[in-house]
Amino acid sequence: MQTRGRASARPDSADGRQRVAIEAVAPEIEGGRFPAKRTLGEKVVVEADVFADGHDALSCRLRYRHQSDRDWSETPMLPLVNDRWRGEFPVEKLGRYTYTVQGWVDGFKTWRQQLIKRVEAGQDPAVDLELGARLVEAAAARAPAAARRRLPALAQSLRGASDGAAGLALSEELAQLMDRASDRSLAVTYARELEVLVDPEHARFSAWYELFPRSFGGQGRHGTFQDLERALPYVAGMGFDVLYLPPIHPIGRSHRKGPNNSERAVPGDPGSPWAIGSEEGGHKSIHPELGTLEDFRHLVQEAGRQNLRVALDIAFQCSPDHPYAREHPEWFRHRPDGSIQYAENPPKRYQDIYPFDFECAAWRELWQELLSVVCFWIDQGVRIFRVDNPHTKPFAFWEWLIGEVKRTHPDALFLAEAFTRPKVMYRLAKLGFTQSYTYFAWRNTAWELAEYFSELTQTAVQAHFRPSLWPNTPDILTEYLQTGGRPAFAARLVLAATLGASYGIYGPAFELCEGRAARPGSEEYLDSEKYQLRSWDLEQPDTLRELITLVNRVRRENPALQSDRGLRFHPTENDHLLAYTKSTPDLTDVLLTVVNLDPHHTHAGMVTLPLAELGLPPDQSFQAHDLLGGGRYLWTGPRNYVEINPQALPGQIFRFRRRLRREHDFEYFL
Amino acid sequence: MQTRGRASARPDSADGRQRVAIEAVAPEIEGGRFPAKRTLGEKVVVEADVFADGHDALSCRLRYRHQSDRDWSETPMLPLVNDRWRGEFPVEKLGRYTYTVQGWVDGFKTWRQQLIKRVEAGQDPAVDLELGARLVEAAAARAPAAARRRLPALAQSLRGASDGAAGLALSEELAQLMDRASDRSLAVTYARELEVLVDPEHARFSAWYELFPRSFGGQGRHGTFQDLERALPYVAGMGFDVLYLPPIHPIGRSHRKGPNNSERAVPGDPGSPWAIGSEEGGHKSIHPELGTLEDFRHLVQEAGRQNLRVALDIAFQCSPDHPYAREHPEWFRHRPDGSIQYAENPPKRYQDIYPFDFECAAWRELWQELLSVVCFWIDQGVRIFRVDNPHTKPFAFWEWLIGEVKRTHPDALFLAEAFTRPKVMYRLAKLGFTQSYTYFAWRNTAWELAEYFSELTQTAVQAHFRPSLWPNTPDILTEYLQTGGRPAFAARLVLAATLGASYGIYGPAFELCEGRAARPGSEEYLDSEKYQLRSWDLEQPDTLRELITLVNRVRRENPALQSDRGLRFHPTENDHLLAYTKSTPDLTDVLLTVVNLDPHHTHAGMVTLPLAELGLPPDQSFQAHDLLGGGRYLWTGPRNYVEINPQALPGQIFRFRRRLRREHDFEYFL
Repeated sequence: MQTRGRASARPDSADGRQRVAIEAVAPEIEGGRFPAKRTLGEKVVVEADVFADGHDALSCRLRYRHQSDRDWSETPMLPLVNDRWRGEFPVEKLGRYTYTVQGWVDGFKTWRQQLIKRVEAGQDPAVDLELGARLVEAAAARAPAAARRRLPALAQSLRGASDGAAGLALSEELAQLMDRASDRSLAVTYARELEVLVDPEHARFSAWYELFPRSFGGQGRHGTFQDLERALPYVAGMGFDVLYLPPIHPIGRSHRKGPNNSERAVPGDPGSPWAIGSEEGGHKSIHPELGTLEDFRHLVQEAGRQNLRVALDIAFQCSPDHPYAREHPEWFRHRPDGSIQYAENPPKRYQDIYPFDFECAAWRELWQELLSVVCFWIDQGVRIFRVDNPHTKPFAFWEWLIGEVKRTHPDALFLAEAFTRPKVMYRLAKLGFTQSYTYFAWRNTAWELAEYFSELTQTAVQAHFRPSLWPNTPDILTEYLQTGGRPAFAARLVLAATLGASYGIYGPAFELCEGRAARPGSEEYLDSEKYQLRSWDLEQPDTLRELITLVNRVRRENPALQSDRGLRFHPTENDHLLAYTKSTPDLTDVLLTVVNLDPHHTHAGMVTLPLAELGLPPDQSFQAHDLLGGGRYLWTGPRNYVEINPQALPGQIFRFRRRLRREHDFEYFL
Repeated sequence: MQTRGRASARPDSADGRQRVAIEAVAPEIEGGRFPAKRTLGEKVVVEADVFADGHDALSCRLRYRHQSDRDWSETPMLPLVNDRWRGEFPVEKLGRYTYTVQGWVDGFKTWRQQLIKRVEAGQDPAVDLELGARLVEAAAARAPAAARRRLPALAQSLRGASDGAAGLALSEELAQLMDRASDRSLAVTYARELEVLVDPEHARFSAWYELFPRSFGGQGRHGTFQDLERALPYVAGMGFDVLYLPPIHPIGRSHRKGPNNSERAVPGDPGSPWAIGSEEGGHKSIHPELGTLEDFRHLVQEAGRQNLRVALDIAFQCSPDHPYAREHPEWFRHRPDGSIQYAENPPKRYQDIYPFDFECAAWRELWQELLSVVCFWIDQGVRIFRVDNPHTKPFAFWEWLIGEVKRTHPDALFLAEAFTRPKVMYRLAKLGFTQSYTYFAWRNTAWELAEYFSELTQTAVQAHFRPSLWPNTPDILTEYLQTGGRPAFAARLVLAATLGASYGIYGPAFELCEGRAARPGSEEYLDSEKYQLRSWDLEQPDTLRELITLVNRVRRENPALQSDRGLRFHPTENDHLLAYTKSTPDLTDVLLTVVNLDPHHTHAGMVTLPLAELGLPPDQSFQAHDLLGGGRYLWTGPRNYVEINPQALPGQIFRFRRRLRREHDFEYFL
């Protein structure tokens, strides 16, 4: 319970002379209940409304410290307009920083303002100079040693009461000395200490590749971790940095699903990796057909050598054969006949899955065991976890588990696979998930995309929610991909990789443009790898491999694409063309992406750009260089023509060259 | 300090099975730091995001109690969309109410949802019915006495496992019994208890009239309270309910200002009432020329008999002759020569005014003395105070003073005269001021007015800021009024009285259309009553008295005009015409106001109304009756023609008549 709307200061308690009000601090998530998020090397820009009664001048500081620091650091906040102040601090260590805002009525600054008015009005400043001298003398007692001698001398000079004295009174030297010795005895510190959680850089900027290792055996043989090691150059070569594997644990046999999710499996059917647990073990074991724990550790190391981090799937559910079902029946809900309740959503039954009962009496032991699962894989060198359906487990559980893991491993990264209602998705992000899946797969029109990504990147959501954009997953083959062919895959790739600093694809289905659905109206793949092995021809001629490689290179070379900030949409005069820029705050990197969302027809339009705000010359031509197609265009003014044939390449990413003055300068840019 | 972003539940402390999240409760001002505001008889509509993991059904309650209640009352909250819930409670007592939100996963509702799906899918519900019977049996122990017998019987019937049992399971009787006995052992209550401050009705809806009593003596004689009593019927007859008097205390003689703010007064000049204090007394004394304290009490009573509440001016500042300056020099700032520092803003000096020094060491005694001033006038029967320049005194002081007064007199009303920056104005409202002056006087174009009043009435501001709209004050004669003549005064009257549920005028200058400024570019009146007596001819033929009387009657007869909610602007296709509706929530009262903002020329336009949302027939004609001009128009469809000649009457207030079907029905409405 916090202080409520009762008198904040009473003659018999607090000091009623504290005159500053501090409001609307940002970022602040639910009154400081949750931390904001940043990555190493970023800045935390903090704003607040800071004001007092009357017209006195204020000073304002942003105070911050890392969890490992004993003392606060400070940096000035500067006034913007309308009583809003801004300051910023860099985050250079993983973990949690705390920050707050302090403000006070600054007697010296106020005096200085008044003196300036007096001098400008031609009035005698003698009385002001005497008052100023007294302020300076009082400050000497608070000042650092060096200034302690200088200030009394300055005070004496102020009493000189000549024109020179007024000049001295307004000098930068005096202002700086007085600023350092400012009287903060009545300073107000904001009522809450807020937090920011600092993650490694790849929490902000990452390209994920998901695959089923078992499909990499060749000739229909069940693939192993060793087979997968041979495929690492293929994945790394496309420029991905995270290799995400579906669950690698023993797969249950009871009610095992057959190909295309059929009710009955036949011998030889591999089953779904998400039906975790068999007599060979549970969440801390490796599926024997993939190899050994030793093989897995080797894979993680080898991947690391190729700049690929391995991400594991955390799916907290059990097959009926999981050891937990035998050893800890108290962690599950039971049917009246005493059997464990399988998952169901009438009329559907999922008899191969036992969900945990997080409302069971033994919830404490259950939480600890599940934490130990994550810690086990941390010990094998894994730091990235893609969490399956986190929205079906309690919020408090995740907040605790992620908090515990990050307490000792602040570089751990959790991606929430919660395709559910927006408030639930945002809550999971607030309570600690590092990245989150989004509705991106189902946002297909220009209006939908602009609306959704404006919400994600330009509202308070951006302080805690880091979108991860997936055009497909093993569960999601959208209608757009089913019907649009290769241009649709290419368009969604360009969108995902440029709208989001973090994105991922499920391959090789994606780059091979696998668009066949299990049945009409379904988003399930035909012959889904969830239930069977697939054999992929990675050398297929129409693969998107080269485009993916190029797009990932453009991402690595352009800082504007490495953050979700700085996204802005622009009109195109054609509903099929979506145009947006991403820029770094200093405008040293500005990229314009234009995508033709119609996979079937060529479209053209006029893209209108706010040139001045993008740092482009309003009155000179500039070069627009398409980093994907290679074309170079001379553009002039805010409206320029774009035409895109989706059969060739449905997206263009332009980098601009400024200071293009004469035709013969042109070759300079070739 | 409140709980921060650390784990909210740990296996070793709180119960991790509390699954509900409660966020974004509204109204909530700065995390509950300040109360929202309502008036007697209003409802408090509370919304919150309430949700849990998974797909279980929730129940949600709004809990509230008056400060005098020991126990909480409860009312259900119902889901809107997107995990938003809403409930409301009435406020029937003055003072403070506390409210909060409680939610829990409702096992019975969840079970009922699942049963419905099962039955719809044609699956055997036997197992569900057994589970349901167990839920019902468990509920019996928690149920009120009557249900404690009924529930076990219902449980037994559920086990019947026939079609009838499923019907019973879904019966309204069982749902209601189970709702009352719902298992709340894992319920989550929102972390904060929020407050709403309940004021009397006239805090929401009031018409103020400001006058200088000293101008009501007749023939240049200094008016008295007795003279003013004779003028009460004039003010009450126009339909005002608050009579606001500038300071009525003894006026200082040192540095007294003469007519038109001249530096030197001559004998006989009455001085400014805001230069408070002389040897005759200070803030608790009556200016002798106005009469005695006894006369004042009589005035208050007589005004009350005519339904006029007397409002006093609270100006916490002193003339050099104020007894405080002698008796409490420690409450003032001093110059190097030992004299008390007068007010100044170089190059301007206000040597007739000593501001209090709220940073003085004796601030506690100062606060108590100023509180005693307000209490003194409370004891004389005054309940309404217009506070002069509250933004130049500390926020904490006002929060304390208003809180102290309202603790014993919850019907007290404070109007903040703070013409300053928006954040400061809003802070004063949050900390306790009942009503607030606004920027209305300087918002003249349609765009400015729509923008500003949308902010005041349709954003979070409306929870704490009650606008009081003044087209003029003794300090403010706007350029619009100076140049626009009678049509300008009439237009601003209609705007003030219909845009704001509370408004006021400074008369008789207003109704007599006094538009002469002290000098070009100034908003000061020529021959301002602040510095001299004026003699007003109340029977002047072009007085706005009749229009004011009519407008105030329309306000009293139409609840839509008695609240600031329900304001909505509409396009007119003419920048000089401003159109807006005000409606009661149930649409039983809907008024359209159209004002021609150009005092010089006739303007016409097409007003477009969202008929369905206003409860008007989209496909039938309806009558628009101008309550000011008396005209009756037959309108059809959303776009209708309006033409306004400002010389006749610059504003129209339409009431609509629906169900107008045939021409011969017309006389029914005459």
